[in-house]
Amino acid sequence: MGKSVRETFRVPAEPDLKAIDPCGRPIGPKDKSAAADDMVDRGSRLDHLQEALYAQATGGGRRAVLLVLQGMDTSGKGGVIRHVGGLVNPQGLHIATFKKPTPEELAHHFLWRIRNQVPRPGFIGIFDRSHYEDVLVARVESLVSEEVWRRRYDEINAFEAELTEKGVTVLKCMLHISPEEQAERLLARLDDPAKRWKYNPGDLDARAKWWEYMQAYADAMRACDSDTAPWYVVPSDRKWYRNWAVAALLDETLTEMDPKFPQPDFDVDAERARLASLVI
Amino acid sequence: MGKSVRETFRVPAEPDLKAIDPCGRPIGPKDKSAAADDMVDRGSRLDHLQEALYAQATGGGRRAVLLVLQGMDTSGKGGVIRHVGGLVNPQGLHIATFKKPTPEELAHHFLWRIRNQVPRPGFIGIFDRSHYEDVLVARVESLVSEEVWRRRYDEINAFEAELTEKGVTVLKCMLHISPEEQAERLLARLDDPAKRWKYNPGDLDARAKWWEYMQAYADAMRACDSDTAPWYVVPSDRKWYRNWAVAALLDETLTEMDPKFPQPDFDVDAERARLASLVI
Repeated sequence: MGKSVRETFRVPAEPDLKAIDPCGRPIGPKDKSAAADDMVDRGSRLDHLQEALYAQATGGGRRAVLLVLQGMDTSGKGGVIRHVGGLVNPQGLHIATFKKPTPEELAHHFLWRIRNQVPRPGFIGIFDRSHYEDVLVARVESLVSEEVWRRRYDEINAFEAELTEKGVTVLKCMLHISPEEQAERLLARLDDPAKRWKYNPGDLDARAKWWEYMQAYADAMRACDSDTAPWYVVPSDRKWYRNWAVAALLDETLTEMDPKFPQPDFDVDAERARLASLVI
Repeated sequence: MGKSVRETFRVPAEPDLKAIDPCGRPIGPKDKSAAADDMVDRGSRLDHLQEALYAQATGGGRRAVLLVLQGMDTSGKGGVIRHVGGLVNPQGLHIATFKKPTPEELAHHFLWRIRNQVPRPGFIGIFDRSHYEDVLVARVESLVSEEVWRRRYDEINAFEAELTEKGVTVLKCMLHISPEEQAERLLARLDDPAKRWKYNPGDLDARAKWWEYMQAYADAMRACDSDTAPWYVVPSDRKWYRNWAVAALLDETLTEMDPKFPQPDFDVDAERARLASLVI
């Protein structure tokens, strides 16, 4: 029996991002059309699983899912939200986008704004960037001392363990692109007036420190990968493969959770009789 | 030239819900398949309009949309969120569901929990129930005195005028179903184990007061309809027609708003040159 999608993309114990091909297709569909077909199946299964998760919460269930998306600019965090998030009922999604912290956010502990966005029971939360920025940009741009960002690994692990404890299943995806692909995508944003709003001159400052970021990613994934809050490295140079891979990771995760519709806490036959007697 | 979708569904000055056919199709597609075709076109336009609205906000734009959904149980508020909300990028949607107020919510003014969920600039907010519950269930169930709920009409009008002032375009839909259709849908929820979680014995208590609710709806729409925060009555006995109608109302509203992608606040050629020089 072959490896699962989760086993295939799980970050290695000693992550070496140069050794992982951003264009790789180690499992699953080999072309866009096969991926599209598979997404239809996964989409309807995910939609059903999400509805059961939501329903379960209305019956007192405590479980939720948190999908953390990280990656360099243009790696496709927004695209995953659109194409994978778009597979399920928007009513069961909670999307949070973490930008440069505001003064109010900076005045609090770095996990404060994150805690405010943890998905409630029944929801699939998707984080577009996350608390990992506090060990990525914060480190590369020296926004805090090494002592501070190193301590954050433990704080993150404790926080994620707490989420698991509460019933939130955490999965984290690094959308792994090559610097060449990023250059093409940034150029496309500059060339197309309908895409220019996505471009930020600061993106180039981060690009200039590409390998420092890769080191920071590798270290963060090494320090904060666990069976209950795993990191996956998703080859993302091909958008269709990236979307398929994240959908498949979410599908495997929810399938294993196996959410169930709750049992009614009322007498079904009695309600049928009441309804029949209530002619309006 | 024919009426627009908005003109067609706009609540009459003296609303008489008995005179509006919940099964009517006064405009648009005559069958499900024609509606599905039209939804594809509207969906891609809505998606584009929503992206422009979102983009505009990143450039300092203040505009947002708020779609308020009201209707008796099973009228299809959730279905509209799934099928109409599902047409656009979930990242640009803000969905808020208002249930029976919590003790904390009750301790505040009735608009407090509503204000907390007003969509930020760039977003399409969808309210599954809303501040109108405070002049509907609150009135029919005598949760507050007549003096209190009557005063709320003015408070709602002032609040919605404030939203308009802030840049939030408000549209409100009453999903209008017949009591016969409700009976069928409630029975379906009782019969199907995967739907039972949506059933609440309290639904029958509200059903028993059907015509009191219709009076409360008519009065609320009469008191709180305006050109800047219009009420629409959407025939909702046919699910496909209901979804089409709400999508069309949203499409017309956003088309009129005509959101534009923002102009870049950086020198595009200079950025192209910087990018070209940044070989990683």
